[in-house]
Amino acid sequence: MATIRDVAKLAGVSVATVSRVLNNQGYVHEDTRKKVERAIHELNYKPNAVARSLYKKTSKSIGLIIPDITNPFFPQLVRAVEETMNRSGYTVLLFNSDEVLKRERHIIDLMVTKYVDGIIIVSNTIKYEHLQHLTIPIVALDRVISQEIPSVSVNNYEGARKAVRLLKEKGCKKIAHLRGPENVFTAEERLRGYLDEMSSQEMESIIYVGNYELKTSMVETMRLLTEHPDIDGIFAGNDVMAVGAIKAITKLGIHIPNELKIIGFDGIELGTVITPELSTMKQPIVQLGKKSSELLLHYINGQEKGLRHYVYQAELVERDST
Amino acid sequence: MATIRDVAKLAGVSVATVSRVLNNQGYVHEDTRKKVERAIHELNYKPNAVARSLYKKTSKSIGLIIPDITNPFFPQLVRAVEETMNRSGYTVLLFNSDEVLKRERHIIDLMVTKYVDGIIIVSNTIKYEHLQHLTIPIVALDRVISQEIPSVSVNNYEGARKAVRLLKEKGCKKIAHLRGPENVFTAEERLRGYLDEMSSQEMESIIYVGNYELKTSMVETMRLLTEHPDIDGIFAGNDVMAVGAIKAITKLGIHIPNELKIIGFDGIELGTVITPELSTMKQPIVQLGKKSSELLLHYINGQEKGLRHYVYQAELVERDST
Repeated sequence: MATIRDVAKLAGVSVATVSRVLNNQGYVHEDTRKKVERAIHELNYKPNAVARSLYKKTSKSIGLIIPDITNPFFPQLVRAVEETMNRSGYTVLLFNSDEVLKRERHIIDLMVTKYVDGIIIVSNTIKYEHLQHLTIPIVALDRVISQEIPSVSVNNYEGARKAVRLLKEKGCKKIAHLRGPENVFTAEERLRGYLDEMSSQEMESIIYVGNYELKTSMVETMRLLTEHPDIDGIFAGNDVMAVGAIKAITKLGIHIPNELKIIGFDGIELGTVITPELSTMKQPIVQLGKKSSELLLHYINGQEKGLRHYVYQAELVERDST
Repeated sequence: MATIRDVAKLAGVSVATVSRVLNNQGYVHEDTRKKVERAIHELNYKPNAVARSLYKKTSKSIGLIIPDITNPFFPQLVRAVEETMNRSGYTVLLFNSDEVLKRERHIIDLMVTKYVDGIIIVSNTIKYEHLQHLTIPIVALDRVISQEIPSVSVNNYEGARKAVRLLKEKGCKKIAHLRGPENVFTAEERLRGYLDEMSSQEMESIIYVGNYELKTSMVETMRLLTEHPDIDGIFAGNDVMAVGAIKAITKLGIHIPNELKIIGFDGIELGTVITPELSTMKQPIVQLGKKSSELLLHYINGQEKGLRHYVYQAELVERDST
């Protein structure tokens, strides 16, 4: 494989000149630049990424930490981040944390020793105190960590209120909420939206815990409909729970949407796969991934100095379950 | 941040000694090792991964190239690879190629400049000629690339025959195949299994192209059942197509499994989410990921010299669609 010395020799310039061309730094005469570029092309020279990162303390890579890629919300998000980053010449190191704080901190340490240029993190467990020592930029995705950490997220509270309002408008008299796990930012915000909307409509709240999972949600929906057979509307805290609820409701022989209406949150593809297709509050998943990547790149390049917090609105998508 | 010089100073030894302890190479007296380890701990010294990889031409990372993480077959596979690799101290660089050859080759070039220690690739497009210049180990996953590239895959041919046999045993008289895309290794193998089993049973083959996608499969199933209303069995080349077919069949008011039985291939979770739950030929996804990682590690560590090809059997999982 060709080295920087081979390039310098062929172009008839010094190694320092080749380096200036490669890094696009310092003055290089236009003719010289062309000679160097021709030599690079001719020798099929590939600058050694590791040596470059050691010298520049950068690796043209970023770390992406998510809870679990097998949760169907994340594959699309990961692709959007990867595509935006690749387009700017960055590679993505992906890590699943299962939101275990110890593991998250270990991953962050590991990434710092690998000179990643920045980190995007989806986490409910990590706190500002675990991140404040970092000298590289970090962006919180999907969930706000603290005011000191820039973030790109969705207005879960307003989305939840809108979902409950739809069920009300469609004629539901008794609306239950299948909530996500405790202490999870998105779940708490959606619960708060449900509670406020219900109380503003002077309706009584009924809450069961579905834990953002399909199986728990099936079991809890069975229990909910046994203990409250007059429920005619369910707001599920995410689409996965809504799908579990639909399975349980179908098993009980209750017709959706005639006897019971249900709406989810997220807008993952799974909602269009099941029958009846699921109405949902759709998050702009691709935009979330893209915006967080662009924001991180702006911090890495120094184009952005301020602390930005972007908040998107979830969009009502009505299908056959309401 | 502490440097290797700080550690050497505190431990009262030379930098070379600290280096020997860090790399676990060469002789170091037990007392000295303990002194160095104490100093590392006290200073919270983290060896610089980039400098280490430059020196050793290794980065303790591997590249994983898959077609598309949003295809529900891959998230579980990716996690299995990541977990096995992390347990051995390796990080995983994930890339989606969409099976575009140009992109795959670009990714491989990029990874080589980053000194990855090995590559796991899932691809139908790449050939041995694109890989033979590589000096790092490579393992083909899920699909066999050539005899010269070690691989971990599933016996798609036998799995397909078994699936067709089940439909026959359950009383199906006219069995159609929704096949995956042309020139895709797994799709071709499953088609071959269907054809051979059908001819050995002296039954007539009917083939439609579902392209491994949900929507195409819905459209093609509609067409299949319009053109051949007497079909009473469908072998879908993967679970995603089977789910599309179930949606189409349900829309047509045909009862599964009474009037028509259907079986898929893969064993992804989606099959348990829909109603009726899908019978399928389950691939051992977690084992595939684990085995390919272990094999790659063995090549990286020099524990394995031979060209290994591991082939797993798909397992029949009967649910409610047959």
